[in-house]
Amino acid sequence: MSDIAPPVAALVEEFAKLPGIGVKTAQRLTFHVLRCPTDQARRLAEAIMRVKESIIYCSRCFNITEKDPCPICSNPAREQDTICVVEEPMDVLALEKTGAYKGLYHVLHGALSPMNGIGRKEIRMDELLRRLERGTIREVIFATNPGFEGDYTARAIERCIKTELSVPEVRITTLARGLSMGSSLEYADEDTLGRAIEGRREL
Amino acid sequence: MSDIAPPVAALVEEFAKLPGIGVKTAQRLTFHVLRCPTDQARRLAEAIMRVKESIIYCSRCFNITEKDPCPICSNPAREQDTICVVEEPMDVLALEKTGAYKGLYHVLHGALSPMNGIGRKEIRMDELLRRLERGTIREVIFATNPGFEGDYTARAIERCIKTELSVPEVRITTLARGLSMGSSLEYADEDTLGRAIEGRREL
Repeated sequence: MSDIAPPVAALVEEFAKLPGIGVKTAQRLTFHVLRCPTDQARRLAEAIMRVKESIIYCSRCFNITEKDPCPICSNPAREQDTICVVEEPMDVLALEKTGAYKGLYHVLHGALSPMNGIGRKEIRMDELLRRLERGTIREVIFATNPGFEGDYTARAIERCIKTELSVPEVRITTLARGLSMGSSLEYADEDTLGRAIEGRREL
Repeated sequence: MSDIAPPVAALVEEFAKLPGIGVKTAQRLTFHVLRCPTDQARRLAEAIMRVKESIIYCSRCFNITEKDPCPICSNPAREQDTICVVEEPMDVLALEKTGAYKGLYHVLHGALSPMNGIGRKEIRMDELLRRLERGTIREVIFATNPGFEGDYTARAIERCIKTELSVPEVRITTLARGLSMGSSLEYADEDTLGRAIEGRREL
């Protein structure tokens, strides 16, 4: 191993830091980079840096964006009185793909997890309450991941909306349980996710 | 999807071009890059470019290296009369890890495959014959992949060594075939088990 070129060893190490990429896969990716055209490797390297340099969080919905407010928040064609609450930016991507939702989003950047010390200050929960306080939102759709933490987060935020805010006319719904418990929202197929939006029910 | 930030979509696309990385995994990797410290993302991007900029092929053994000849070829402590023939640079890495081999290498960059139009001009086969012609090599170990193409490649090169070169004193060997360590006899495939019986040794 001592005779392996340091740049190759370094790239294997960096690839292996990515989630779900073990050393063997990191080696395969490294040797792919070695053999692919330089242009292709440069496009990957530049795309990585461009994401870090140009992506910020929308100050309204906290989704990832190049400009603030994000294209969804600043699109007048979106329904301005509906907010879909998700855990991660990836979930917005999954929901947008279905084409079944035309409202706004709110990205929590996590779920409440008392076991792991994730409380309301660790996620963008108070920012959601402040958006609702303005009184222009008529429906909040919880699209947190089905499972203990996602459900707990939806229930806890619902309770805060009802006890801390005076917005009685807000309808609070959650995605229909066509989604199997314990699964992850980002892996749901588009049809299931689309039907889940259409079939949303009172929380 | 139209409202997804272009740099994010671009990075998903570039990741998905890597071998064995589907769109879902590319999305996960992209969101990891979004959330990881900028330094870590920069190290990955720079490691990719450094590999492309600094890695060349050794003009003797055709392994990947930063300088020519490579550290293995220019290391006087390596046995200079033995060449281990492998298909890919990754195979050198695997063999070096064992610490069991102290000689030189020759990387073919592929295997002969008449079905796929891969002939002796498509791999570094003639370069190997030229190395042997000099008469300083006493043993050639074929470490091509076990299987049709790897075995065919070893046999074809062996034939060329015997017919085209006048180096009768060269010993030609191949890696032992048999049961892998830690494997279970009942699950070994017939071919492997058959070769293990043929190649049995004194205990």
